[in-house]
Amino acid sequence: MLTNNEIKLINSLQRKKERQKNGLFLVEGVKMYEELIKSNFRIRKVFSTIEMSDTAEYTLITDSQLSKISQFSTPNQVLALVEIPNQTVIDFNQPSLILEDVNNPGNLGTIIRTADWFGINQIICSNNSTDCFSPKVVSSTMGSIFRTNIFYTDLAKFLTESQLPSYGAFLEGQHLQKTNLQKKCNIILGSESHGISKTLENLIDYKVTIEGNTKAESLNLSIAAGIFCFQYFQNNR
Amino acid sequence: MLTNNEIKLINSLQRKKERQKNGLFLVEGVKMYEELIKSNFRIRKVFSTIEMSDTAEYTLITDSQLSKISQFSTPNQVLALVEIPNQTVIDFNQPSLILEDVNNPGNLGTIIRTADWFGINQIICSNNSTDCFSPKVVSSTMGSIFRTNIFYTDLAKFLTESQLPSYGAFLEGQHLQKTNLQKKCNIILGSESHGISKTLENLIDYKVTIEGNTKAESLNLSIAAGIFCFQYFQNNR
Repeated sequence: MLTNNEIKLINSLQRKKERQKNGLFLVEGVKMYEELIKSNFRIRKVFSTIEMSDTAEYTLITDSQLSKISQFSTPNQVLALVEIPNQTVIDFNQPSLILEDVNNPGNLGTIIRTADWFGINQIICSNNSTDCFSPKVVSSTMGSIFRTNIFYTDLAKFLTESQLPSYGAFLEGQHLQKTNLQKKCNIILGSESHGISKTLENLIDYKVTIEGNTKAESLNLSIAAGIFCFQYFQNNR
Repeated sequence: MLTNNEIKLINSLQRKKERQKNGLFLVEGVKMYEELIKSNFRIRKVFSTIEMSDTAEYTLITDSQLSKISQFSTPNQVLALVEIPNQTVIDFNQPSLILEDVNNPGNLGTIIRTADWFGINQIICSNNSTDCFSPKVVSSTMGSIFRTNIFYTDLAKFLTESQLPSYGAFLEGQHLQKTNLQKKCNIILGSESHGISKTLENLIDYKVTIEGNTKAESLNLSIAAGIFCFQYFQNNR
């Protein structure tokens, strides 16, 4: 059964502060749940409106109960309470995608999904960035969140300490099409409205631009990230 | 001044049927307005909460009036009523991005913006696709909608009549990285959940896939479109 305390807890988890306090986040929908049980993430509790064939324990609930706890307007059968994994340590020797002040949850989710597709599994965000365990981010990763290590840290400090070559996405710079992104490197993208800050710009080895038609003002952040990841994969297959 | 009839008309334009009946759509925000006045689109009326320096006529309104007519939760100073352009004829000799059943407005807007960046200015959507003049699509094109010809038609009929080589995005096929997309071609993407239909598949010359890590299930539709456009631009610069 679904208790009132559980309803209260689950709904509180749409807020970052409550997720951090409880060490929990929400995973919703059948497809996401299938990705979840393939991962090492620890499941605290599962609520489902359908009989489930796998062996994990779950609580059968009604559609109307699900709609009380779902964070989405069209809930999809399953909701799991999942433990936020213990933060591991940044691997300075791994290729990383670095995001400064990404604030759109859909963009962050899509970027995590795309980086995973192209084999980049370490993402480092500035402390100001949107939280990767919000329902909207989790859902738009389509499961890639379970295969990606995501850190929030001081990017200037990270770039100062990192020994890997760093490539930053700028509106002007050498063309990405002619750039050979090294196997072990840092790829940095700024926010869509402000780009990469001056502080970080000074710590970046190569300023790189995605050449295009000059009439359009810029690319969407997740599109730019996707194109960098594509080029990275192409350079290192 | 802003009349009650205008409020009623403007709010009705969030619905496709009303946009078509009135031949009008909404353009909101300062940046979008700046792109609009650079275009050939015909402006019917402009409402603004700020004094505007350009010569066009406008109606000064209050913030609270703007919030009554804006389709967004954070309105941004300007709202223009704009005429939906008369449909021109599909140019069978131009490179086209072809979208089958794209239903997410944010995705369509981002795709229009990205195609424009890479110089593809003809987009052809299946009749089932989301309408390009909805507020959410218009806004996420960031002005590219004013530089792009967008058609809604029977794609099977179009592909049958087109003489250009066609490349379709599939989960299996020749690698995009090794494909040379010709200058004059059709690039086809299916919906994120269903991919390209069997009917269209039979009309496509080359099945192309974006190679990546096999663990992730797929790419977001607008990311896939962006990577195809990037490759197209790279092949034809």
